[in-house]
Amino acid sequence: MQLPKGKSNCITDVEGVQVGHVTLYEKLNEQDTVCTGVTAILPHKGNIFSNKIRAASSVINGYGKTAGLVQVEELGLLESPIMLTNTLSVGTVWQGTLQYMLNENKEIGDSTSSLNIVVGECNDSYLNSIRLQSVKPEHAIQAIESANSNPVEEGAIGAGKGMVCFGYKGGIGTASRLVDTYTVGCLVLSNFGKRDDALFTDFGSSIKLDTPDGSIMMVVATDAPLYDRQLKRLAKRCAAGLGRTGSNIDNGSGDIAIAFSTANTYNHNATVQLESMSFIRDDHPIMSKLFQAVIEVTEEAVISSLKNADTTEGRSGRVVEKAPLSL
Amino acid sequence: MQLPKGKSNCITDVEGVQVGHVTLYEKLNEQDTVCTGVTAILPHKGNIFSNKIRAASSVINGYGKTAGLVQVEELGLLESPIMLTNTLSVGTVWQGTLQYMLNENKEIGDSTSSLNIVVGECNDSYLNSIRLQSVKPEHAIQAIESANSNPVEEGAIGAGKGMVCFGYKGGIGTASRLVDTYTVGCLVLSNFGKRDDALFTDFGSSIKLDTPDGSIMMVVATDAPLYDRQLKRLAKRCAAGLGRTGSNIDNGSGDIAIAFSTANTYNHNATVQLESMSFIRDDHPIMSKLFQAVIEVTEEAVISSLKNADTTEGRSGRVVEKAPLSL
Amino acid sequence: MQLPKGKSNCITDVEGVQVGHVTLYEKLNEQDTVCTGVTAILPHKGNIFSNKIRAASSVINGYGKTAGLVQVEELGLLESPIMLTNTLSVGTVWQGTLQYMLNENKEIGDSTSSLNIVVGECNDSYLNSIRLQSVKPEHAIQAIESANSNPVEEGAIGAGKGMVCFGYKGGIGTASRLVDTYTVGCLVLSNFGKRDDALFTDFGSSIKLDTPDGSIMMVVATDAPLYDRQLKRLAKRCAAGLGRTGSNIDNGSGDIAIAFSTANTYNHNATVQLESMSFIRDDHPIMSKLFQAVIEVTEEAVISSLKNADTTEGRSGRVVEKAPLSL
Amino acid sequence: MQLPKGKSNCITDVEGVQVGHVTLYEKLNEQDTVCTGVTAILPHKGNIFSNKIRAASSVINGYGKTAGLVQVEELGLLESPIMLTNTLSVGTVWQGTLQYMLNENKEIGDSTSSLNIVVGECNDSYLNSIRLQSVKPEHAIQAIESANSNPVEEGAIGAGKGMVCFGYKGGIGTASRLVDTYTVGCLVLSNFGKRDDALFTDFGSSIKLDTPDGSIMMVVATDAPLYDRQLKRLAKRCAAGLGRTGSNIDNGSGDIAIAFSTANTYNHNATVQLESMSFIRDDHPIMSKLFQAVIEVTEEAVISSLKNADTTEGRSGRVVEKAPLSL
Repeated sequence: MQLPKGKSNCITDVEGVQVGHVTLYEKLNEQDTVCTGVTAILPHKGNIFSNKIRAASSVINGYGKTAGLVQVEELGLLESPIMLTNTLSVGTVWQGTLQYMLNENKEIGDSTSSLNIVVGECNDSYLNSIRLQSVKPEHAIQAIESANSNPVEEGAIGAGKGMVCFGYKGGIGTASRLVDTYTVGCLVLSNFGKRDDALFTDFGSSIKLDTPDGSIMMVVATDAPLYDRQLKRLAKRCAAGLGRTGSNIDNGSGDIAIAFSTANTYNHNATVQLESMSFIRDDHPIMSKLFQAVIEVTEEAVISSLKNADTTEGRSGRVVEKAPLSL
Repeated sequence: MQLPKGKSNCITDVEGVQVGHVTLYEKLNEQDTVCTGVTAILPHKGNIFSNKIRAASSVINGYGKTAGLVQVEELGLLESPIMLTNTLSVGTVWQGTLQYMLNENKEIGDSTSSLNIVVGECNDSYLNSIRLQSVKPEHAIQAIESANSNPVEEGAIGAGKGMVCFGYKGGIGTASRLVDTYTVGCLVLSNFGKRDDALFTDFGSSIKLDTPDGSIMMVVATDAPLYDRQLKRLAKRCAAGLGRTGSNIDNGSGDIAIAFSTANTYNHNATVQLESMSFIRDDHPIMSKLFQAVIEVTEEAVISSLKNADTTEGRSGRVVEKAPLSL
Repeated sequence: MQLPKGKSNCITDVEGVQVGHVTLYEKLNEQDTVCTGVTAILPHKGNIFSNKIRAASSVINGYGKTAGLVQVEELGLLESPIMLTNTLSVGTVWQGTLQYMLNENKEIGDSTSSLNIVVGECNDSYLNSIRLQSVKPEHAIQAIESANSNPVEEGAIGAGKGMVCFGYKGGIGTASRLVDTYTVGCLVLSNFGKRDDALFTDFGSSIKLDTPDGSIMMVVATDAPLYDRQLKRLAKRCAAGLGRTGSNIDNGSGDIAIAFSTANTYNHNATVQLESMSFIRDDHPIMSKLFQAVIEVTEEAVISSLKNADTTEGRSGRVVEKAPLSL
Repeated sequence: MQLPKGKSNCITDVEGVQVGHVTLYEKLNEQDTVCTGVTAILPHKGNIFSNKIRAASSVINGYGKTAGLVQVEELGLLESPIMLTNTLSVGTVWQGTLQYMLNENKEIGDSTSSLNIVVGECNDSYLNSIRLQSVKPEHAIQAIESANSNPVEEGAIGAGKGMVCFGYKGGIGTASRLVDTYTVGCLVLSNFGKRDDALFTDFGSSIKLDTPDGSIMMVVATDAPLYDRQLKRLAKRCAAGLGRTGSNIDNGSGDIAIAFSTANTYNHNATVQLESMSFIRDDHPIMSKLFQAVIEVTEEAVISSLKNADTTEGRSGRVVEKAPLSL
């Protein structure tokens, strides 16, 4: 039995979570089209470095270039926005995010410790002239600065501009569920699958675009009080949601999930020895409901990315069509 | 598009793989019923300690007591049968398997190294009077000795005798697929889920048995030449197959996958310095087909466990019905 | 600068921790000698199943058969004593511990969930006729029941009876350190190394006993409030302490560390949704001191196991001498 | 007994391995000094993307920003140089390395798959005005292009220019050992520890510089034929070598090891289904010797980084002295 949906069926239904997109699109010539972007997910409205939050990741298939997971796993903390972009722009988006964070936090690299930045990616090179590296550091900053708590714009937008999913236009998708008094949201960057893999519909087509294996980034947000070990359990459930869409988690797919909770912040500047945390007991029935919510929002966010993405023309005259799915 | 099924749609379609069951069933009195067993999976017909095989595991949810995974992960080798039983019989089945292996290998613990035994389990305490510990070491030995390559008997048999799945009688299930010249098989011990979780049918019922969260053991076999890192990739795909059945991978579920390849043996007694191995390239299209096969056989093995399990009466007069699924 | 030692320089300096040994020794004939045992570490004096504690493990080298780590890693909880024995007795000690726990907790396997038992091991087959499987389930029960908070008896006792370390008699060793108001203790079962590997002394000898590669189990206890992720950080530091003794962490060595904190208990029977925990901040200077403490107690516990182990005669007339180390 | 050293006691003793440094040093004003750099390690002299090599990593302490490990772990392959720099230059060095690789491989992002770049870092902000981000993409390219197989320049050079180790000037260090016909080399970027932590000497000083917790990057190279699982075993042994120097693997330390073998290349452009590999058996005595070699070269590379680093003045007039160690 499906769980009830959140108010806007969006990751921003989780109080405080904000999403910002920067979309780059320009047909340069017969061969080259810029068709890419950046999406920023901010876990709360304050200073994320000063008020870190609990987070964890799950590498479902590691054919991916996501940066920043090493420290998230060690400390169970997120201290930067989560940035999404194309595969060859991890460096510039990392650089832009760094610039933003240094501006906001004058003490980083001077009187206090360093900074860990999380950047995920999918490969949009079927539509986007990725070798041109059109994403610049300032686009990352713009994505962060434009982030807001409105219902998320989905489809061929932000980092999703050039993505292809199940042989149709994919990109940004999101969904949310309510569990008790809590909300679980997911935002995906979808870029995987062949038409006849899909389990949620019959696309009635065996046309196979010559796309790379593709990937998916999955960001799970919740206001349920959970700590890093538990958030890793949530992140791992994305594999089941992904499986339900029809994904075979192909070899070349970077399928990476990051989960965070907004409920327990960690003050960077505290000097006390002891911290305390509230968290839902693993054996309370709500925990399995939260797992169910993650699976449902992951599956629905993928489908939503298809429903909301319009037909897009990319490099070399390639066109990827809007999926024939009714809304 | 689904892959073609193997000859008997069984894990024993993988050349050399053998399965043996010992089933224990006895109504002792009003309260107590013995309703449990042991299932042994042998990767090949030779001496497994002498001719080890490549293997890996994936702990999808670790609320489980599986023994032996530490060494499998370190060395990428399996050197014992894979044994399945109930949760409180891990010790006795370990002990029985040890006895069998010591008899077959007089040098273990004397002139050569030690032995790593793999025992997986699910909790059959809804039907089985598990505290009675009715499984004895000799039952493990019998399961190994009775193993054969025939089509596998499924349902309420062996370790599956007392298991409950989606609120109906579960237990042993199996399926296989063909990929190029290779076969991928899966055998599951299914023991999880509520009726209205099922995605493969509408059970039309919201009856909830008061069972524990349950678990599933998944054993994947293939004759495709793969090594341990690659087998881990296969084992991880079981999460997607499991997700497709409707599982939410609940908190209390021990969902553990073990994958092995029969193609590369490792001779315990070799004294050479160098070994060599053939393996399928990760980037060859067959690899993603093997992933697809794992997902399909995992899902189908769960459904098959339901189709083949008959209504069973257990302790305290509890009855678990056969699932209303047509074969 | 070394940290101050605890009152008795023992793992039992951590309030509530108890250790019990059962030693088996009997020369049966020219070939066979029983020279083995069981050691139990109890994290507190109450019912461990009812009042679980936070724990984590680190598999430094996984050539070992330790049972129970899968669930410890998933839930971050320990719910049984930690049992140590010889490699081929993991099953019987598991079985005996189960019996003890079932007696203490009538609801396990009936009205409540299952039980996860932790059993670690080293291979004492150089001195012990390990194939005889002389350890019986009742020895595990006796070890648990005899556990106490006195200064730990070290050397050739309990599970350490037949162990060999750096070519001399090894076995049980322990040490402790004070960090602020907290205590960190370690108990090891030492069974590794060649004479000329030792860094803490010059044994002046290149005699090489024909022992297997050997192993070491390391149990770290603290009353510092830490949770599972942090305890994993402690457990990982055992590798550095082990490295300082001179260990090369050989291929055939099962080098496994388990760390627990007695500060945060988890009531099995609580029905509340929310739990709370206090813990030391990772970035507080005390954390690195705790790491230092783990490294120091691991190293010293190994040396102490040698200092306290007397010359022992085992099977086939083999004699392992007391190490020439002054106390 | 220590293993014999390689010809130049350098990582470049491993046939084909090349190292290049770019050092940036400029006193800008009273406050600011540029005191940083980039070091590139190339596993062989060919095109690394076309001829990938087997690799693995071990995150000993994950307080670090190393990029690229996710894919190395999934595929067991390295396809870019390993780049080392300061913490806030991961993005630009990633970007520069990308540029270099795109120039060398016109098909990346066009007709073939994407590219995984590995960049490790330590925090040189005690001496370096790290917020100025003086490292530019072209410095990464220069480091790669200047790489050669000569004996490695050590100390305050390349990425090591601003590093501090045990309270003295640290940076780049290297060492090598011979095992049978094979060579094992290690290059470290050392940046951790307090004076009185050192175990290899008595610095006779309790002066504590106000440096951050620090970190160490450890790169292990060998020509021994090993595959990814085995290389992970090598990488894990760095923890023991690090422990021997006196490191407590502090909370804020990013202690990360990457190991690669030059013996098994993986041709990116091959279209065959099967690949084959030779590798040393895990149970052959040479394997434990390789482990010993890793421990020895890690320890010695740290000490060598100190011996070779000269007194350096950095930002705000801070001076870090050359360690009083005789060569």
